[in-house]
Amino acid sequence: MEDPHPNTRLEIFCDGVFAIALTLLIIDIKIPASEGIGTTRELWLALGHLGPSIFAFVLSFAIILITWVNHHALFKLVNKSSASFIYANGFLLLTVVFMPFPTALVGEYLLTDHAAPAVVVYNAVTSAQAIAWILVSGAALRDQLTKDDRSTARMRDSRRNGYFACVVYSLLALIAVWFPLAIAIVTTMLWAYWLTFSLRETVAQDRLRPASAASASPHRRAGGHRR
Amino acid sequence: MEDPHPNTRLEIFCDGVFAIALTLLIIDIKIPASEGIGTTRELWLALGHLGPSIFAFVLSFAIILITWVNHHALFKLVNKSSASFIYANGFLLLTVVFMPFPTALVGEYLLTDHAAPAVVVYNAVTSAQAIAWILVSGAALRDQLTKDDRSTARMRDSRRNGYFACVVYSLLALIAVWFPLAIAIVTTMLWAYWLTFSLRETVAQDRLRPASAASASPHRRAGGHRR
Amino acid sequence: MEDPHPNTRLEIFCDGVFAIALTLLIIDIKIPASEGIGTTRELWLALGHLGPSIFAFVLSFAIILITWVNHHALFKLVNKSSASFIYANGFLLLTVVFMPFPTALVGEYLLTDHAAPAVVVYNAVTSAQAIAWILVSGAALRDQLTKDDRSTARMRDSRRNGYFACVVYSLLALIAVWFPLAIAIVTTMLWAYWLTFSLRETVAQDRLRPASAASASPHRRAGGHRR
Amino acid sequence: MEDPHPNTRLEIFCDGVFAIALTLLIIDIKIPASEGIGTTRELWLALGHLGPSIFAFVLSFAIILITWVNHHALFKLVNKSSASFIYANGFLLLTVVFMPFPTALVGEYLLTDHAAPAVVVYNAVTSAQAIAWILVSGAALRDQLTKDDRSTARMRDSRRNGYFACVVYSLLALIAVWFPLAIAIVTTMLWAYWLTFSLRETVAQDRLRPASAASASPHRRAGGHRR
Repeated sequence: MEDPHPNTRLEIFCDGVFAIALTLLIIDIKIPASEGIGTTRELWLALGHLGPSIFAFVLSFAIILITWVNHHALFKLVNKSSASFIYANGFLLLTVVFMPFPTALVGEYLLTDHAAPAVVVYNAVTSAQAIAWILVSGAALRDQLTKDDRSTARMRDSRRNGYFACVVYSLLALIAVWFPLAIAIVTTMLWAYWLTFSLRETVAQDRLRPASAASASPHRRAGGHRR
Repeated sequence: MEDPHPNTRLEIFCDGVFAIALTLLIIDIKIPASEGIGTTRELWLALGHLGPSIFAFVLSFAIILITWVNHHALFKLVNKSSASFIYANGFLLLTVVFMPFPTALVGEYLLTDHAAPAVVVYNAVTSAQAIAWILVSGAALRDQLTKDDRSTARMRDSRRNGYFACVVYSLLALIAVWFPLAIAIVTTMLWAYWLTFSLRETVAQDRLRPASAASASPHRRAGGHRR
Repeated sequence: MEDPHPNTRLEIFCDGVFAIALTLLIIDIKIPASEGIGTTRELWLALGHLGPSIFAFVLSFAIILITWVNHHALFKLVNKSSASFIYANGFLLLTVVFMPFPTALVGEYLLTDHAAPAVVVYNAVTSAQAIAWILVSGAALRDQLTKDDRSTARMRDSRRNGYFACVVYSLLALIAVWFPLAIAIVTTMLWAYWLTFSLRETVAQDRLRPASAASASPHRRAGGHRR
Repeated sequence: MEDPHPNTRLEIFCDGVFAIALTLLIIDIKIPASEGIGTTRELWLALGHLGPSIFAFVLSFAIILITWVNHHALFKLVNKSSASFIYANGFLLLTVVFMPFPTALVGEYLLTDHAAPAVVVYNAVTSAQAIAWILVSGAALRDQLTKDDRSTARMRDSRRNGYFACVVYSLLALIAVWFPLAIAIVTTMLWAYWLTFSLRETVAQDRLRPASAASASPHRRAGGHRR
């Protein structure tokens, strides 16, 4: 019982990376230069042309936020750390930090005749992020970092979801070579699904918590007396 | 009594986003390139032309700081979290991160003949931020995240202020199509009002705290013995 | 005794701003574009031309680090917060975030014939930062946020240093209109003095701490039993 | 026993700097401008040309992550702070923040005829970082900040590794004047070695922890009862 929160510094570090990745997205949105603008109408038009960039900004923001929520939920399942867990997390952060690049690529090229590379790269990066989830969950399971049996079961679900996502996004990346626009729509719908799934999941978890804390988590219950 | 601070990670995450949003503002202020500068007088003039940018920087800084103080005060009212609260917060952060864009727009175009789009966009974004406050307060109330009855009452005030702000800024955005300059002055005065209101409010809250902690907050009083 | 660390969130927020202000400095150092480089010798020369930028980077880094250390020391003296303390801190952060601008200006123009505006602006900003220290110390004293009598005495020293620094840097800013280079040397030497002063001060404080904790700080002694 | 975690604020500050240094790396990777792209094939080619930049991004990310892990491990050995420790840490952060510059330089110039300056600068900066590690470890030892005898022994190892790394990277910087490519390969292999060493080390440390906590750390054992 040396340190009740051994992962605090790792969590703060990850939160910092997520927060900065979110905020840096705004850098790519530049206001129209006043030199090229002569009338109010031209300024409205110039603002309208920022539409795709702002859509890419909102999409990247939502994706990184969802990933942060999932990361947050996963870290609630562990109460120890290990070297391979830390480096697997590092790889996950790498894919998070990289995310704005493919999103900007899609924002720039989706409505052109050559959208395929953008959508392929986008889905390939998402597939790499799924691999990172597999590695993080796998390290947590292998090094027995989970809190209790219920957490272990949820961590296994997380790893299985990772394998599933990796296969799906790899296939989407492949098919996007021929049908970029269709795949872009499928991908956006998948994120919307993850968002609602994540909302529903957390709500379910919140409802179950009191019961589960009393039955499945002897460690926590014991801890409750001490603090 | 499992975790005395379940919102710690969410708070750190939000603080990170606010801190970065504040600091990134300086990126838009570039020093005058030395190629175009031949005399001391020219350098003074070039620095003078940075005036509007520096004004926009100070204004954005003040706005994000005030928003952070309000966010800080709101988080003092809750001691639990929920999925919809987290995502409503995410939407609030989105509007915070986006704020530098309309502010820069106003800084660039306010003194030109086509200021209307800048002031309209600025008030529309502020209106969206008011919606975010409504969602955050609403989620806290619906999911019963507040600490005690007094916190619930203050959270209701916060939501009502949100509705009020949303209507006001939407109207201002509309009127700015015809009278951008007048609306810009009204908006700046509104921020000054928020700043003094926020200062007065916090002072009042500080004075009331000992009394309220003894009367209206059984949870806190009980906690005081334990820690 | 409600919350043993009421300033935690404010500290984290300030630390975030300091950390980002430090790190953003590197953005201004761009590698030489490979198009203009034909030989190894040309690359060495191009790297040599980055000298002033790298000097400005190191100087800004050192200044922000020293300011952080002083901020850290000042926050050790208080254990409460107030609205005016928070906003005075906000103004201090504003001057910290703005610091890279005058430093880059000095780096760009110090060795030209028109260095005066750069050195004037630099000292004016430092003078504004001294005002921020006066406001922060003043708010802490007025709202009685200090821990004990010894902290109050140190806070008074801090405010007095602020007044002194404000007068000195205002005078330096004025004189720099005519003698920019001399003033730049004086300013750099003042920072070196602050650095060694800050080092010596902290060492002295560390040595005194056990004794002072036993004699002058009943609050802390009492707290020691509880934790 | 005043403050159980006197280094918390320093740790958060350092974590912030590491997190931002990691995330800022993405700024240098710009998507290909749509003006120059006429066909799908051209976009694939343009993405291919980003290869070296992406390699430099991944390498910098890995280096900063490894440095963070080492920093994290070193901070586990100390439970006090001192002025010289804080400023030595500041110098370490300076080298971390600066790291993206030499990495980008290597990414840009490694495959050209004039790679020598890039590889020399890169190894010189790494050598400066080794000096920072010597200063940090040295300050911790001189000011007796380590937790117990075992931590002191490990801190001495850390300082010795620092001296070793400083000599090695200085020699590599020198030899790179004539053989840049060979030295670049040696350097990359050294990082790979550090990564595996760091992984192995942490694993060994994790396995030893329960035993060591019971035998070598009376301070911590005593603390365990209280919390």
